[in-house]
Order: sequence, then structure tokens, then C-alpha cells
Amino acid sequence: MGTRVQQPGVGTTKTEYFTFAHPPNEFVLESGQKLGPITIAYETYGLLNKNKSNAVLLLHPSTEDANAAGFHAGSTQRGWWDNMVGPGKAFDTRFLFVICSNVLGGCGGSTGPSSINPQTGKPWALDFPVVTIADMVNAQRHLIDFLGIEKLLCVAGAQLGGMQALQWVASYPRRVRSAIPIATTLRHSPQQIAFNEVTRQAITADAEWRKGYYYGFGRPETGLAVARMIQNITQMSDRIMEEKFSRRLKDPGDTGFFTDDFEVEGYTKYRNDRFVKEFDANSYLYITKAMDQFDLSRGKLFASGRPIRTRFMVVGYLSDWLYPPYQALEIVRELKSHKVDATYCEINSKYGHNAFLMAADEQTHLIRHFVQTDIFW
Amino acid sequence: MGTRVQQPGVGTTKTEYFTFAHPPNEFVLESGQKLGPITIAYETYGLLNKNKSNAVLLLHPSTEDANAAGFHAGSTQRGWWDNMVGPGKAFDTRFLFVICSNVLGGCGGSTGPSSINPQTGKPWALDFPVVTIADMVNAQRHLIDFLGIEKLLCVAGAQLGGMQALQWVASYPRRVRSAIPIATTLRHSPQQIAFNEVTRQAITADAEWRKGYYYGFGRPETGLAVARMIQNITQMSDRIMEEKFSRRLKDPGDTGFFTDDFEVEGYTKYRNDRFVKEFDANSYLYITKAMDQFDLSRGKLFASGRPIRTRFMVVGYLSDWLYPPYQALEIVRELKSHKVDATYCEINSKYGHNAFLMAADEQTHLIRHFVQTDIFW
Repeated sequence: MGTRVQQPGVGTTKTEYFTFAHPPNEFVLESGQKLGPITIAYETYGLLNKNKSNAVLLLHPSTEDANAAGFHAGSTQRGWWDNMVGPGKAFDTRFLFVICSNVLGGCGGSTGPSSINPQTGKPWALDFPVVTIADMVNAQRHLIDFLGIEKLLCVAGAQLGGMQALQWVASYPRRVRSAIPIATTLRHSPQQIAFNEVTRQAITADAEWRKGYYYGFGRPETGLAVARMIQNITQMSDRIMEEKFSRRLKDPGDTGFFTDDFEVEGYTKYRNDRFVKEFDANSYLYITKAMDQFDLSRGKLFASGRPIRTRFMVVGYLSDWLYPPYQALEIVRELKSHKVDATYCEINSKYGHNAFLMAADEQTHLIRHFVQTDIFW
Repeated sequence: MGTRVQQPGVGTTKTEYFTFAHPPNEFVLESGQKLGPITIAYETYGLLNKNKSNAVLLLHPSTEDANAAGFHAGSTQRGWWDNMVGPGKAFDTRFLFVICSNVLGGCGGSTGPSSINPQTGKPWALDFPVVTIADMVNAQRHLIDFLGIEKLLCVAGAQLGGMQALQWVASYPRRVRSAIPIATTLRHSPQQIAFNEVTRQAITADAEWRKGYYYGFGRPETGLAVARMIQNITQMSDRIMEEKFSRRLKDPGDTGFFTDDFEVEGYTKYRNDRFVKEFDANSYLYITKAMDQFDLSRGKLFASGRPIRTRFMVVGYLSDWLYPPYQALEIVRELKSHKVDATYCEINSKYGHNAFLMAADEQTHLIRHFVQTDIFW
């Protein structure tokens, strides 16, 4: 009991921190506001080759961080894409130098609303400036410069990560050889905005949120737990919920009215969820707002005017109703209509939006092949 | 401005109240607990014919009440199914005697958690006994007896209303000539339970809910508003949201971070929603719990052992992802496998679950024809 079988992987990893934009050379946000210094938390796996042509940038979904693979010393918690990153995996660290950075505005070590505002010596809270996905990508570009990488072999990510991948190409087309946007969209539909908004309302409705200035007091965990439930429901397919939970009664002896009759409800588990216990509520608000405001539709992906020679593999999942395949097809249509090399891969997974977390054989094979195609040794 | 064009309808209506189960003759609930006296709020439209063969019982969805058609004196708010009930409409009051009763456990005038507990002289709150859909139907049966109706021409309703229609046939097969379960299911899927549970959690997370004993204090309106948003999102199709809201910016001059950038978010409107302002939070908890516990699958519809000669028309909507058509097909399969006369009608509406509120021509025509087929004059 409790023995953990070690799967081949990247092993123990450590988050590193890169700080730039020290005043007076502050970073100018899309809004025109200035911010600095900025710290970006990141991890790397594998080795950068001599001509720096094997670097892959992984971009995380909304509630994850820089720890994509392996585990930190003293922890058994593996990175969010551990089954996709490592020797012999989709992003094969025997050949690739894999970077994953936490986003600007996040709470995984990067500068965000829970960071100290140098002007006041207190956490920024809602005084933190609005950040966009273009701002997140611009900040990452400083990290990539620092690492000495001129051209990324690939940018890849799902959901918010996919939006960043698209934004990388929009902002820096010459610096990205290939891109894999997964289960993502050129812009959120009203339904996606509405689901995000209801999670934000659940958080801000919690009295413990204290209008955003909760640092030093408690955490709005009740609101975060409601938000987490909504996320979990929308990221799972109807079918996988049926398979997973069916209607097993949790405890046939328990007939109390407000207890969790059905296992699916298991609300109490959310109370101990890592997101609820650790994720900064304000970071969640800023990040989801950035997602809702993201819009590279109708030609805006090409607004830089520079030619896009990046190769694309756009991935959608048949059972994903939160980021439905028609949105992936819209990305492909937009790319093709501008003569960009783009393939659409639809994966017949039953896991809904969460499919991107599963290292399905098909997915692993597709990605491995696509990424390694043009490593220039 | 403000002039209201009078559409043909049932005109001014009034809710009536029927009280039964006066102690010591209390009503025995499915749980074995006793309850009494019980009041059921109801309305009727049209006239009962001489041999009482033209009575139709409409069963309301979870957050509605007895006011299905017309409007109350002094109000311009029409009943929830006003466009389906009236002279020349789907339920044609020139020929039919239409009854709509508020459910036991509700807050539209029927006995429920906000009613006074005769033992204490205070509102029941969470001391109100658990009620099931079978209990709701048994209470309605007392009303139908009181109205002197031996056999209902039809029972019809959507969602919770459809569950009640199914339960009527399961409990009293000989008293129902025909049934129209609409956008409903033999039992909730884990996804449906999970969405209900998250709305309950949003309500109970509100400090104003006061662990259920909020009567005489405020109302948990923040929680109710979050619940209402979730309901609205899940009851609308992705496509209709896109058409309705697109991504029109509400006010291009307003760049505040926590303002509603997109019209879809319009959270503030929920603050003034009738549900948020008027619906009893505990009734909502009891009713949705009854829906989650409802289960007439796998032969339980036929558990009474009495033959079912009721004719069924089961209606599903192609764009309804909350109560998807496959659940309607399961009802039909279950009925057919027991040799019950059942037809499935799938309506190609774009409105999602809310389609049942739209008097689409096709729907009106199908229902009118089906209901009037066997009026026995």
C-alpha cells in the first residue's frame, strides 16, 4: 500500500525564475500600462542542442503552472502533462529541450495579483493591471530571449495554452517553426464566456473574497470550490461521467438530506482540491478574463502583416463540448484561407475537454511525429 | 410606449388553493413520514365537460408555478406556458379543461419548506420532510379527486413536469389516457445531477442562506443569482447564445476590469430576476433533490404491476444538451419494450432545453392533434 511505481519520466524537477523589466525599463502592457520588475517561473526538461533548434515551448491551461513534468523534491505530485513529456513520450526529452513557463498574472511563481506591489509593499490584489494573452506571450518572449533561443521548434498547449500558441504565431511568426493548438479557439463563444463568468461570480460572491483584498485574511475557498465543480463538469463528457460515476450510492446507510447521495456530487472532495487550497482567486479572475477577451478571429491572427510560415497541427476532441471541434475547424479554415500549412486532427476520445490530459496512443503518435519532423540538427 | 397588445389568451386568471390531509388524517410520504394539512395551489382554464373527459393536467418545470397561462389581476406577467395554453393554442381551452398545480415542496402557494410548521408556528425550513416526485404526484391525485375527475385526458410537462407525467402513469396508470413527457428523462445522468448539485452548492455557500434558516432575515440572493446563471447557460444551446449575444460589447467606453464586458455576462440582470427575488431557496433545494433522486428506469415505470394503456407522445429537442434526445429515446424504448403505445417526436429547434417554452408551429400542431384525438364527448 502506498508504494508508487516509478514510470519512466523526467524525474525530479525544479521550478526556476527569470526576472526582467527592472525599473526604469518597465514592460509595456497591451493596455499601455507599465509593469516591472516581472518574474516568470519556468521549468525545462531535456537538453538544448548546439544550434538551439530543438526547443519546444509548452503552454499551460488556465489552472496549471510551470511544472509540466516530473515532480518536485519531497512531493509525489506529478506535473500536469507528465504523461506527455519525457523519454519516449509525445514530447520526447531524449531529443527535445522542453520549456514550460507559468503565465504572467498567474500564481505559480510568476508576477501576478498575489505578488507584492513594489509601490506599496503589499500584494497587488485588484490593483494589478489587466493582462492579455498577448502580454503573457510577450513576457514569455523575454524568457526565450534569455534562454538564447532564436526560433522555437514548436509551441504547443491546450485551452489557454492553445490560445497562447496561436498568439505566439500572431505576435512572432518568424520565431515559431511549428504550432500545436489543442482543444482551443480563436475566440470564446458566448457559452464559454458565460461559463467562465459564472465561475468568477461564484468566487466574488464569497464573502471571504473581500472584494479582492483577502491577502492576509482567509481564502474564498467556498467560491473556489463551486468554480472548481463547474470546471470539472464542463471539462468532462456526459458519457465519461456516466462511466465514472454511474449512480452508485455513496453510502446506502446515509439518508440525510443534504449529504451527497450520489458519488458524482462528492462536493466534499473539492474542499481539499489543490486548486481550492492553493490557487490564487484573483489570478483565476485575471486569467479567465484574458481568455474571454482573446480574439484572433477574422484575420486578426495575421494582423502583424508578416508572412506566417509556421506549420500547424490543430487538435480537437470529438467529445469536447466546452471547446467543440467546430472551433478547431475554424482555426484550420482561417489558416488555410491565408495559405498557412495546417492539418486538423480530430481525436475520438470519450474524455471530453480533459482528453488533452490523456496520453492516448493516437495523440502521442501524432504529436511525436509532427514535432520531430523538422528538427534541424 | 408601454401599451400591451392583448394576444388571444385565457385572460385574467387566479390561483386557487385546495387543502387536504387535515390531522389526524395525515398524508404519508414515500419516506414513511407524515405531513398535514397540505395545501396545493392550482389554476384551471376552460370548462370541464359533462362527462369530465376533457381534463388535461399540466405539470410545471422546476422553477415555475401554477400560473401556466393568462395573467393575474394587476400584473402583466404571463403564465410560463401562456403561448401553449388558450383558445386555438396547443392546449386548446375551447375544448379542454386545463389544470396546472404547483408541486408539493414548492413555493408558489403549495405546502413547502417556507410554509408554517403547525408544530412550531415557524417556517419549516430544513425540518420540512424530504419529498419525492411520487409524493408530488400523490398530492396532485388528491386535487384531481377533489375536482371529481376520474380519468385525465392527458398529463403533460417538460423537465420536472415530464418526470411528473411519467410518475402519474407509473402510480395511476388507469387514471391517465395519454401522456406527453417533454425534454425529460427516466432518471438524471451524473452530468444532470452534477449541474443541479453545483447550483445547490452556490446557494448553500451564500452566508445569507444561514444553513437553511433564513426566514425573517435576508434572502440568499447572491447564491440564487449564481444558480440562475448556471440554469440559464445549461438550458440554452451554444448556437442560440451565439445568435442572441454574439460578442457585442456592452459599452465600448467602459474598460473597467470587473464590469460586464460582454453582453452575455449581464450578471446584473440576474440580480433583478424574478427567480432570485421571489423563489424560495429551500424549495429549490428540495425540488432539485427530488429530480436527482427520481428513477423510473429499468422497469420501475411498470412496478405497479397494473397494465399501462396510456398513449404516449415523447418529445425531445435536437439542440437540448441538458436533457438530450437520447434520454427521450430511452423512454420510448422502455415503453415499447413493454408494449405501450408510444411515439417519439424530435423537434429540430435551435433553442436548447428552452425549446419547450417556444410554441413552435410543429410542436403546437403535434400536441393539439395528439391531445384531442381521444376526447370522449
